[in-house]
Amino acid sequence: MDNEIQKVTHVQNIRYDRQAEALYIIDQTLLPNEEREICLQTAEEMYDAIKALKVRGAPAIGICAGYCMYVLAKSVRTEDQQVFLRKLGEYGEYLNSSRPTAVNLSWAIRSMLRTAVENVGCTRGQMLDALYEKAVSIHRDDIDKCTKISEFGLTLIKDGDGILTHCNAGPLATSRYGTALGPILLGTERGMKFKVFSDETRPLLQGARLTSYELQRAGVDVTLICDNMASMVMKNGWVQACFVGCDRVAANGDTANKIGTSGVAILAKHYGIPFYVLGPTSTVDMDCPAGDDIKIELRDPEEIKTMWYEKPMALPEVQCYNPAFDVTDHSLIAGIVTEEGVIRPPYDKNLKKLFARKG
Amino acid sequence: MDNEIQKVTHVQNIRYDRQAEALYIIDQTLLPNEEREICLQTAEEMYDAIKALKVRGAPAIGICAGYCMYVLAKSVRTEDQQVFLRKLGEYGEYLNSSRPTAVNLSWAIRSMLRTAVENVGCTRGQMLDALYEKAVSIHRDDIDKCTKISEFGLTLIKDGDGILTHCNAGPLATSRYGTALGPILLGTERGMKFKVFSDETRPLLQGARLTSYELQRAGVDVTLICDNMASMVMKNGWVQACFVGCDRVAANGDTANKIGTSGVAILAKHYGIPFYVLGPTSTVDMDCPAGDDIKIELRDPEEIKTMWYEKPMALPEVQCYNPAFDVTDHSLIAGIVTEEGVIRPPYDKNLKKLFARKG
Repeated sequence: MDNEIQKVTHVQNIRYDRQAEALYIIDQTLLPNEEREICLQTAEEMYDAIKALKVRGAPAIGICAGYCMYVLAKSVRTEDQQVFLRKLGEYGEYLNSSRPTAVNLSWAIRSMLRTAVENVGCTRGQMLDALYEKAVSIHRDDIDKCTKISEFGLTLIKDGDGILTHCNAGPLATSRYGTALGPILLGTERGMKFKVFSDETRPLLQGARLTSYELQRAGVDVTLICDNMASMVMKNGWVQACFVGCDRVAANGDTANKIGTSGVAILAKHYGIPFYVLGPTSTVDMDCPAGDDIKIELRDPEEIKTMWYEKPMALPEVQCYNPAFDVTDHSLIAGIVTEEGVIRPPYDKNLKKLFARKG
Repeated sequence: MDNEIQKVTHVQNIRYDRQAEALYIIDQTLLPNEEREICLQTAEEMYDAIKALKVRGAPAIGICAGYCMYVLAKSVRTEDQQVFLRKLGEYGEYLNSSRPTAVNLSWAIRSMLRTAVENVGCTRGQMLDALYEKAVSIHRDDIDKCTKISEFGLTLIKDGDGILTHCNAGPLATSRYGTALGPILLGTERGMKFKVFSDETRPLLQGARLTSYELQRAGVDVTLICDNMASMVMKNGWVQACFVGCDRVAANGDTANKIGTSGVAILAKHYGIPFYVLGPTSTVDMDCPAGDDIKIELRDPEEIKTMWYEKPMALPEVQCYNPAFDVTDHSLIAGIVTEEGVIRPPYDKNLKKLFARKG
């Protein structure tokens, strides 16, 4: 199973080396200048990796969290299973606090904890094997979901289309094809040509550092633009569809994604361009009625003022507002592309139907 | 007259020192870390200063160009006035090619050339005096216009309002109060309080480096945001008006301004916030029927990929699209604030009326 995961992944962003008993991730904050793997051993290293966006993208965070919980489970040296469960629960709570907006994080942690509870009464070895299998299955499921999302997304565009994307929802953010970039990468494999516009995505520049990197490496015609150029690119008639990922989708279709996504959606509506959200159904939070209920993480002002730059780009005393995400109103979204198909409005009704069917 | 100019200017971005016979500008590319004056002596230095945005903002470029033409006129050592006029015309053409979109540049150069033609037959000393007086009058007129624009703009907002601005149209871009920042600075002098959101304005970060610098220095409550955060700030209900400058206004009200301006206008319309363009009537080009006729300058991709950064932020081979300006459709503009008053739609009719009245 491990081999299969390795084989099909475009960029191996997360890998658990069973021989070395070690979890490795590509430190995405160093891309595109350096492709360096780091080993996550302690809960603090894991918390930091998620918080500092060394691993990022909702699905990738989920995959990483699964392996993290397995590594932490191995580190709990006790025969008392109540102590083991309590300690694992504490680790889960700690990791979960690193990125409050990422529903995949809490989802993966809960899945691992459920597996642990289900295996109470087994030997320590059996417990750890079950947790390892669960982590691998989270990873494998994501590859499967990304492939399906890519197939469904590909039905929405045609050869020669221009596609605008914001932030990064490619292989680095997920597994294999990614979500928002999935249809593009899959179509390119099949000989189709697209012209992709990648918003650089301030302040952390995921579009410049990651998306344009992934697409360029995959041989896709990609053009990097500043976020504020999207309006002009659309006005020029160069964009036939917008594809973005998602960090959390509320039950009514409101979607939290990287800051700036809602602006892209409003521009797309203005110019009559369909705006699609791509993500696995695990990103849909049916317990969250609407976007207003999504807690938005505020990040360090220095990300805007000094990070990346040789010299400060503003007076040190200037205040900044630095939300990590914004919420795109469901009325701006033409479709939500999941592994179960393309969900269309009305989202409240159609998401409820989908989850009723899934059970 | 020189003293009056010096006295009323918030930041002395351009000054001609008559004793030293030298033209000085603040190199705006070094702000906010360093406030350094540079001396412009040759046509090449002047071309470079305008091209490289050491002096920037349509009115400031016009003011600078006036003094530049005077300095260049002084450098032409001939008693043959036809040779003098031809040489000055060549200098004008050369300077004019440094920023094709800035109508104030060609306007100021034409004004200086007209003054030269009007003084054919005078002594060399009289000719140079006339050109100096013309350059000073361009400067003085801008101060006068900015003050009037600030007064008219102030009628559009009230104490406590939140105002979003894009790029820089403050004292550094103009003279004295500036245009887009004028009402804010004037109102602040009168004890009013505003909460200003300054888009950082990628790729050259004029909002971070210049606008937030000017406002912070003036004691205004300013919050710096990335361009892609404007949608969220508006959605939060924090913005009651948008104020932007302009590089060229077409006869139908379509407005060329810093890239990203059209996106702000579309967001403002979506959220029901009035979007105002502030600039002197010299920025209105009645010979340009509509925005489609405005030539948009494309700039170096490295401004997006490597400028400011310690390390490249994208693979070197990634292509970029880097337009310096975009055009905001007149339908998105609630009013154009000039020294003659606030022009309201329909712009084609009302701008024609204004210019007929001005003669």
